[in-house]
Amino acid sequence: MLYSALGKYPAPATAKARAHAVRALSRLAARARDAGITLGLEPVNRYESNLVNTAAQALQIIGEIPSDNVRVHLDVYHMNIEEEGMVQPVLDCAAKLGYVHIGESHRGALGTGDIDFAAFFGALAQVGYQGPVTFESFSSAILNPALSNSLAIWRNTWTDNRALARDAHRFISGHLEGAWQAV
Amino acid sequence: MLYSALGKYPAPATAKARAHAVRALSRLAARARDAGITLGLEPVNRYESNLVNTAAQALQIIGEIPSDNVRVHLDVYHMNIEEEGMVQPVLDCAAKLGYVHIGESHRGALGTGDIDFAAFFGALAQVGYQGPVTFESFSSAILNPALSNSLAIWRNTWTDNRALARDAHRFISGHLEGAWQAV
Repeated sequence: MLYSALGKYPAPATAKARAHAVRALSRLAARARDAGITLGLEPVNRYESNLVNTAAQALQIIGEIPSDNVRVHLDVYHMNIEEEGMVQPVLDCAAKLGYVHIGESHRGALGTGDIDFAAFFGALAQVGYQGPVTFESFSSAILNPALSNSLAIWRNTWTDNRALARDAHRFISGHLEGAWQAV
Repeated sequence: MLYSALGKYPAPATAKARAHAVRALSRLAARARDAGITLGLEPVNRYESNLVNTAAQALQIIGEIPSDNVRVHLDVYHMNIEEEGMVQPVLDCAAKLGYVHIGESHRGALGTGDIDFAAFFGALAQVGYQGPVTFESFSSAILNPALSNSLAIWRNTWTDNRALARDAHRFISGHLEGAWQAV
């Protein structure tokens, strides 16, 4: 999260706080552009930010930043809490989509929760997304306690990260192939 | 939430904290039983409790309380973040299901988000649930700021609560009728 600190905020973001974030991001984006770096803004759920919870909000901020090296970084875990569905946010981002996190609704193994991955990968193929697709899953079995506590990981749905990663790779590859073939 | 204070906790619940909760609930349940009152334990998402996030955890605590007047109170908004799906938790609760909250994945109008209501209502009919089905939706347009801030309501998806309630009543009635007819 480049636009603010991660955490449960006590009140909605003020116009002043938002303006500060846009100004700081604009300075950062100019520096990053000079260094050949693209920035990604990740909308996260309401319990982690009061500023950017949806793709629409990220796109709006990007529209206010003068440099053109800022993209949206979508994460289906957060989309499942904040968006109206898995497709429209991807279509709205289109070429502004720069990075993708996938993860299950309960942050466990892919395919064991509520996320409609077929719809999401279909939308990625539809907009011609060619960037990385990174899997996130959390277990305090292998995670730093500071991170696992800030992300509210209170129960472990797995302990073997290698098996988890192998299964995730197969899951993602299968979905990507299916989605591209359907386009 | 009868089992602890609502909020983002800084660490997992300790065994001692859980034992305190079970002891307090046991005393409360005995008093409530003498007064002819049934208690409901509502599993909520990880950002609101580190103790009871799933139906399975609620059932486990209920099994440790001597009185038989404690039930599970399911809420699909929280289930969408914590459970593996909308059906199994209902089947697991069965006769121990005492109260139901429904709400959309983003806490807006029913039918505009990600929740699989057909699956959920189908499960309610399957276990013969006859209790209340209460709709929750939040907008700071009409909500007390202290509550709306503690629930992290940062954007309003509606302002007219009467239209929202009318649509919700129609939505719920339609789903209930369909589900009961299918049993």
